[in-house]
Amino acid sequence: MTTAAAQANAVRFGVRTARETIEAAIETIEIRDSAYVSVTRLLAERARRMADAIDIRIARGEQVGPLAGVPFGVKDLFDVAGEVTTAGSVVLASDPPKEDDAIVVRRLIAAGAIPLALLNMDEFAYGFATENAHYGVTRNPRDTDRLAGGSSGGSAAAVAGGLVPIAIGSDTNGSIRVPASLCGVWGLRPTQGRLPLGGVYPFAASLDVVGPFAGDVGDLKLAFEAMDGRSLSDIPDAGGLRVARLGGWFEQDLVPALREGLDRLTGFLGISRIVELPEAARARAASFVITAAEGGSLHLPRLRTRPMDYDPATRDRLMAGAMLPAAPVIRAHRIRNWFREQVHALFEHVDVLIAPATVGPAPRIDQPTIMVGGKPVSARANLGLFTQPLSLAGMPILAAPLAPPAHEGASAEEQLPLGVQLIAAPGKEASLFAVATALSQAGLLGFPTPAPAPVHMSSSNSGNS
Amino acid sequence: MTTAAAQANAVRFGVRTARETIEAAIETIEIRDSAYVSVTRLLAERARRMADAIDIRIARGEQVGPLAGVPFGVKDLFDVAGEVTTAGSVVLASDPPKEDDAIVVRRLIAAGAIPLALLNMDEFAYGFATENAHYGVTRNPRDTDRLAGGSSGGSAAAVAGGLVPIAIGSDTNGSIRVPASLCGVWGLRPTQGRLPLGGVYPFAASLDVVGPFAGDVGDLKLAFEAMDGRSLSDIPDAGGLRVARLGGWFEQDLVPALREGLDRLTGFLGISRIVELPEAARARAASFVITAAEGGSLHLPRLRTRPMDYDPATRDRLMAGAMLPAAPVIRAHRIRNWFREQVHALFEHVDVLIAPATVGPAPRIDQPTIMVGGKPVSARANLGLFTQPLSLAGMPILAAPLAPPAHEGASAEEQLPLGVQLIAAPGKEASLFAVATALSQAGLLGFPTPAPAPVHMSSSNSGNS
Repeated sequence: MTTAAAQANAVRFGVRTARETIEAAIETIEIRDSAYVSVTRLLAERARRMADAIDIRIARGEQVGPLAGVPFGVKDLFDVAGEVTTAGSVVLASDPPKEDDAIVVRRLIAAGAIPLALLNMDEFAYGFATENAHYGVTRNPRDTDRLAGGSSGGSAAAVAGGLVPIAIGSDTNGSIRVPASLCGVWGLRPTQGRLPLGGVYPFAASLDVVGPFAGDVGDLKLAFEAMDGRSLSDIPDAGGLRVARLGGWFEQDLVPALREGLDRLTGFLGISRIVELPEAARARAASFVITAAEGGSLHLPRLRTRPMDYDPATRDRLMAGAMLPAAPVIRAHRIRNWFREQVHALFEHVDVLIAPATVGPAPRIDQPTIMVGGKPVSARANLGLFTQPLSLAGMPILAAPLAPPAHEGASAEEQLPLGVQLIAAPGKEASLFAVATALSQAGLLGFPTPAPAPVHMSSSNSGNS
Repeated sequence: MTTAAAQANAVRFGVRTARETIEAAIETIEIRDSAYVSVTRLLAERARRMADAIDIRIARGEQVGPLAGVPFGVKDLFDVAGEVTTAGSVVLASDPPKEDDAIVVRRLIAAGAIPLALLNMDEFAYGFATENAHYGVTRNPRDTDRLAGGSSGGSAAAVAGGLVPIAIGSDTNGSIRVPASLCGVWGLRPTQGRLPLGGVYPFAASLDVVGPFAGDVGDLKLAFEAMDGRSLSDIPDAGGLRVARLGGWFEQDLVPALREGLDRLTGFLGISRIVELPEAARARAASFVITAAEGGSLHLPRLRTRPMDYDPATRDRLMAGAMLPAAPVIRAHRIRNWFREQVHALFEHVDVLIAPATVGPAPRIDQPTIMVGGKPVSARANLGLFTQPLSLAGMPILAAPLAPPAHEGASAEEQLPLGVQLIAAPGKEASLFAVATALSQAGLLGFPTPAPAPVHMSSSNSGNS
């Protein structure tokens, strides 16, 4: 699969029709996704109609958008016209189909892109695993015995597996950044409040943000610009930006390869500055409390009447959240306000911060733990160790895969993707793309996408040949 | 007492020294305040030092600010250097004195104004009555048998009683607008977030705003500009503004004189448009819940250890708030977000809204009730009927007294002040001042200030003569 940019150019310049592009993507999904379990519904008929409409416009010489004919995947918590929005749950499965697309879906369509598949997620976006009791466990295309991460695991896996060049997801505590990192693709949590949430099923309104996934930084920018409804016209020169590395909390528990990867980035950029965000652990706790309380409040009426329809992994957390008293939640908001001030003060002296996205590579599905403080802890709850505190302050954060290690003798585990976060002040997405593009061009960021075809698929293919 | 503007001019042009101005104010407070109980601490020594310093600067020909030598009163929840901030409570009375002035106090001082008195309030700003178990009941200078309103009752009474031409207070649910209305002075709740809260004892952080009181609209503007640190340079022509009256919730339960006063305003402005804010009752309930929960959370640690030090009128409300579950508080914030959207939508079609500030004049101290829905209800909890829903949306609101009735045969009760609210979109204080100034110049807004000398004081004076 080529990039979204290349696919759109092929369509715009008549090298390939939009319909051919869509048919090829449908075929890829049908062949590959049984190994990934990322797609929950294929939107083939609507996609074919939309592709044909674009081809007609091109034949007439009309202008089409920068993503003309490019298929994209949609986390199943965005409204798509004619489809029920399940938010990964059976609780909503008997709701009526939506009449309209979510606003950001509509904007991507306006740029020429075509929604082709609804994608798996943790139920109601509550988790970092995409282990869904109703729709299955999404598997990591880099190693299908491993978790894709969550909650937007279907979105990351669909891009990493080459099913679609771009996908959209949501990030409350890290639900874009964690799966992007574990699957070796690019993801963006934009500035909180920048992209409209109309037609997006909510989780924790104080923290919810939507954003894109892509296979490279150029496609990520194209997808973000389409979702934002305007071009990033003000991208600065990366060389003029003040970049620093986040220390303290964000240096703990890292696997050696991740630490070395971060060292390579800072070495290349010639930066030695390490700055600290105070009280990161407390900020993470505040995120936990706000998320639990808001999620619990949102679901309380239905938890009272239909508790057994919930995914067990989600139900107990939502119930516990619904029973929280107000006092700690208000204290969490006070911590948030304080933390936000500290972060803003920090950005007076720095433009972009670099931090790890997770402690290490994707955990195995049969052993869903990560090592924190020398002890194994639940991956589902703790993969957001480094993403969650940052959600609290509303900054834009770009998740990028480190380039794979150059040395030959790397073990299979060492060849798994590892992700970093680039963080800027609110509204400064352009600074993130400046640094990310420079590091990508230098070969330090970026992971080959798509992943090689899944093993059991290729073996079944060879059986057919 | 003359206006702040006139006092400052007399000082700036050498007609009277700042020291003389301050001595006169101290004397007035010493004579009059025993009838009002608005001053909790007189800051005489510091004020004299500051006045002398201003006089020296004037003698040297140095520039002094637009409020040079003007004494002002400070609700006892703003930090004043060298003083303990009690927030109207004995709970904080043994705290160490503050080292710095609150930011807005500092800004007023930078404009030449002189803090002369700390002023009474409902304990921790939780009430609309200024009935304080520790520091006494503040009496309304228009009729000392009546409530001054609260929680910034000392601030309103000190201005209405002619003790100081300007004072500052805070407004969470109406704590500036209610006492301003009952005492017949002007008050401003600025746009939420516009004035800094540094050095202000918090109550409900989601709603807290600080602002000025004054005897006329010119002084109110001067005080606001000093607190804001800049002049309002963009005051529009009142004739070009779209003004409408708030209907529905804001038309109920009004005493006839208030309804007639509002009719006179709209008649003069030639407006017939009545607009409605949807779900005002629900917005008020949301304000109640958010205030109770945030106040309770703030005080919970001390309520656990020193409950009996609290004013009984405050203690039970704070305890109840501290025990609220999170779910209804989060629902209240959802209602707030929705309500704010409605209000913003409304301001696309209108510039200034007019509404009553309270249902009628100040209640009697010995019968602290107001009539709502035909029944007497607690004044302390319900005087914010019309102010509280509006707090939820963050707009600037100017409270202004209706001009007294012209007819001769008005009863004593009919001669009491009645207040209105002028409301604009966030950041549009200039529009409020445009309309308020026009209505003041037309003689429709504004109440003679100061009130006549208190009865028992003048009789004791006549006894001495």
